[in-house]
Amino acid sequence: MRVAVVTFDGFNEIDSLVAAHIINRVPGWRADITGPAEELTSMNGVVIRAQQPLEFASEAGAVIVGSGRKTRDVVADDALMSRIQLDPRRQWIASQCSGALVLLRLGLLRDVPVCTDRKTQPWIEAAGYRVLNEPFHARGTVATAGGCLAAHYLAAWLIWAAAGRQAAIDALSYVLPHGEEEEYTFRALATVEPFVSGAATVHEPATASW
Amino acid sequence: MRVAVVTFDGFNEIDSLVAAHIINRVPGWRADITGPAEELTSMNGVVIRAQQPLEFASEAGAVIVGSGRKTRDVVADDALMSRIQLDPRRQWIASQCSGALVLLRLGLLRDVPVCTDRKTQPWIEAAGYRVLNEPFHARGTVATAGGCLAAHYLAAWLIWAAAGRQAAIDALSYVLPHGEEEEYTFRALATVEPFVSGAATVHEPATASW
Repeated sequence: MRVAVVTFDGFNEIDSLVAAHIINRVPGWRADITGPAEELTSMNGVVIRAQQPLEFASEAGAVIVGSGRKTRDVVADDALMSRIQLDPRRQWIASQCSGALVLLRLGLLRDVPVCTDRKTQPWIEAAGYRVLNEPFHARGTVATAGGCLAAHYLAAWLIWAAAGRQAAIDALSYVLPHGEEEEYTFRALATVEPFVSGAATVHEPATASW
Repeated sequence: MRVAVVTFDGFNEIDSLVAAHIINRVPGWRADITGPAEELTSMNGVVIRAQQPLEFASEAGAVIVGSGRKTRDVVADDALMSRIQLDPRRQWIASQCSGALVLLRLGLLRDVPVCTDRKTQPWIEAAGYRVLNEPFHARGTVATAGGCLAAHYLAAWLIWAAAGRQAAIDALSYVLPHGEEEEYTFRALATVEPFVSGAATVHEPATASW
């Protein structure tokens, strides 16, 4: 499984790198920071090198769109957006915080309630979508997560849905606070479980609305 | 407050960037990725640019030593280690996971039980130190955290100890899973509270053992 962690300038470090790190714990899986330029500068001035060009998102088996300070500019940029072609019939697709604006712009969230951060919430609502007071929601192969540390829910969902429950437990085990593994694992699994069974296969649309 | 997030090649992305991000939410505070070379490559091949040279750790008001795949090589490298001079009488000092090996090598953990990750645990124990089955521990101005996501405890401790309880709550509020803020805030504060009152001032040694 190849995973594109789509990351733009002004990115939130937690939102791109926590999910990427956890996914890279899964044997045989590989998550790459995927961006529109060779170098990307975070909201706190951390410069990272993209591991894949933006076009990689279209080929990856799963795509996570990260968050950042400039996501509203990103979705207003037609040239940039035309470089991303996602397909929920053959890809797992998820967003973190303001990354939901990208999924919305791509028409991937029709009739689905959205999880996002509190700062992005009014923009999602202004577009006519309902924002949940919850950290994670998915329908079929498309998911949204809200709040940076919800990244570990998002990773758990993707891994469980595509590689099984035990693979998710194993990947989480590397990153959970020492001594609190049981509590964190239980909460993460309980959070994503309602959205896993309906997402049994990525190769067929899970709902007619797609 | 200037904070050095000490980061070496082979670094764990979560261990350096989660604490840095949360700390950068505190008004007037600034956390910088601090490393021995201009570019640092993570355990998953993510290349980031150091924001400060390693020597910055000696001047910063607080130092967080990150974790990674090569920490045992780092502490065996006399030339590298000689570039880090830390002083718990004038600095807050903390480690994340294998970063505890650096604090140990610098003589900062004498007679103090240690929090670290499960992979580093045998190395800490082989050096004669006790490893706790807990995510966070501090004595005075020196703290250790174990498990990547314990980074938010570490950040909460530093911010509470140096800027007050409300500042810690505010900084956390930006990163907690949406809808679960209360649960996460309560747990984080409960985890670090026992270690805050004894760390009231950084300018005097809190225990005679230093």
